[in-house]
Amino acid sequence: VNTDSSIGIFDSGIGGLTVVKELFSLLPGERIVYFGDTARVPYGSKSVETVRRYASEDTELLLLHHPKLIVVACNTVSAVALDVVQELAGSIPVIGMIEPACKEALRVSASGRIGIIGTDATIASKAYEIELQNEAERSGKKIETFANACPLFVPLAEEGWEEKVVAELVAREYLFSLEEAQVDTLILGCTHYPVLTKVIQAVMGPQVKLINSGAIAAREIKNYSVLSTQYSSLDKHLFLVSDIPRKFQSIGERFLGQTLQQTKQVIYEDAWVM
Amino acid sequence: VNTDSSIGIFDSGIGGLTVVKELFSLLPGERIVYFGDTARVPYGSKSVETVRRYASEDTELLLLHHPKLIVVACNTVSAVALDVVQELAGSIPVIGMIEPACKEALRVSASGRIGIIGTDATIASKAYEIELQNEAERSGKKIETFANACPLFVPLAEEGWEEKVVAELVAREYLFSLEEAQVDTLILGCTHYPVLTKVIQAVMGPQVKLINSGAIAAREIKNYSVLSTQYSSLDKHLFLVSDIPRKFQSIGERFLGQTLQQTKQVIYEDAWVM
Repeated sequence: VNTDSSIGIFDSGIGGLTVVKELFSLLPGERIVYFGDTARVPYGSKSVETVRRYASEDTELLLLHHPKLIVVACNTVSAVALDVVQELAGSIPVIGMIEPACKEALRVSASGRIGIIGTDATIASKAYEIELQNEAERSGKKIETFANACPLFVPLAEEGWEEKVVAELVAREYLFSLEEAQVDTLILGCTHYPVLTKVIQAVMGPQVKLINSGAIAAREIKNYSVLSTQYSSLDKHLFLVSDIPRKFQSIGERFLGQTLQQTKQVIYEDAWVM
Repeated sequence: VNTDSSIGIFDSGIGGLTVVKELFSLLPGERIVYFGDTARVPYGSKSVETVRRYASEDTELLLLHHPKLIVVACNTVSAVALDVVQELAGSIPVIGMIEPACKEALRVSASGRIGIIGTDATIASKAYEIELQNEAERSGKKIETFANACPLFVPLAEEGWEEKVVAELVAREYLFSLEEAQVDTLILGCTHYPVLTKVIQAVMGPQVKLINSGAIAAREIKNYSVLSTQYSSLDKHLFLVSDIPRKFQSIGERFLGQTLQQTKQVIYEDAWVM
């Protein structure tokens, strides 16, 4: 492995920038090549078949940049298409969002009552629940899981309404069943959700531990990656997207927590297959 | 023109089914070929360039079915890419959502204070405002227009939350400036919004006339089309989509107002252009 090669990371759109933000802070020496499929976002409301097709195309795009590691910064892809990415990646390690978050949830949960929130596709896949139960079995723990899809959280975060009353009302609606279930740990199973941490914590109460799946995965990456010896400046990074809509810059910078430079658009060509 | 050929109609996703619902009731003898680009939905938050590319691909797909008329049941495409559709359609008439709605708004508005709500791309394009001003000039009327993008309305409608308190709160947030401006007419410039008619009317007050752009366009189509002589049963229609996600059937039927049968998936192949 060439330590100078980059960490490849992709997401359905800009949510994965919350993971890049964690990587910047944990691994400032690493070069990042990011791809956000902003022309086809979101993935979380689409079918498993379509998400698997998109995931394979996204992976192929990253592979053109010869990454030493691939981070699937999209919970939906991690839930329904991690095997697709792994097969294409060959010997290149692939890190998804689910396994690290589940390990952390099991570590911090005292009662074993664990909640999961995510997109419709992620929750329907039951990927988190299956991984949690498998991990729990391995460590001889007894757990109970409770999951709920929160489709409005993504547009709320993108609209920048996280401080508004409406965000609290939406959070109460989605989180009610998880509160009722008295979970002591809640996995934020979508890279957009960290933006809503404050309101989710307020609704769930201070006793509930929130697991930021992206931040936890970033910690895991620290173990995997062959760290670069040189400090990398931001201009070494590469941000690729399939569309640059009007609000891209402002939303992207809010998610990344800093200026987003040198974004390049890649276009895919479509042909109908009848 | 072959009167037996079908009316082609497309949208970024399932919102256009609210227009089909109107067509079914106004033109029960017509055969509909619908295409919803559910694999790439939504269009309203994407760039003009990307929407124009998608619109041309959608039109080409419909043209394979030899329609006698093409209905652009997507306000975003109508706002930023109607010329793309028209050029590809050649001599086949193309009906967008904007012109009919603007004529109707001018007809019903007494004060000339007209509001427009739509997706981010539609509102940013100012297509409604320009069309309204042009029409007003032609008829010697003086009008003032007020526009606002309402990105959360689409996910609210798809979530089926139109009766919940949160819908009212979101509507108050988006419609506040239009209320303040004392518009007497409000154009619902997105095919999803008719689902939210009740809450929008409640927030704006009973004195404000709401213009359902899809329903108005359907009335316009009645003038254009060479009506079929035979009554067409639902099984003659064809519903094409580029993705069939988990909730497609239930959301689609809520928008269409009846059972949605014989949905066929079409796949497009993508290849990155570097």
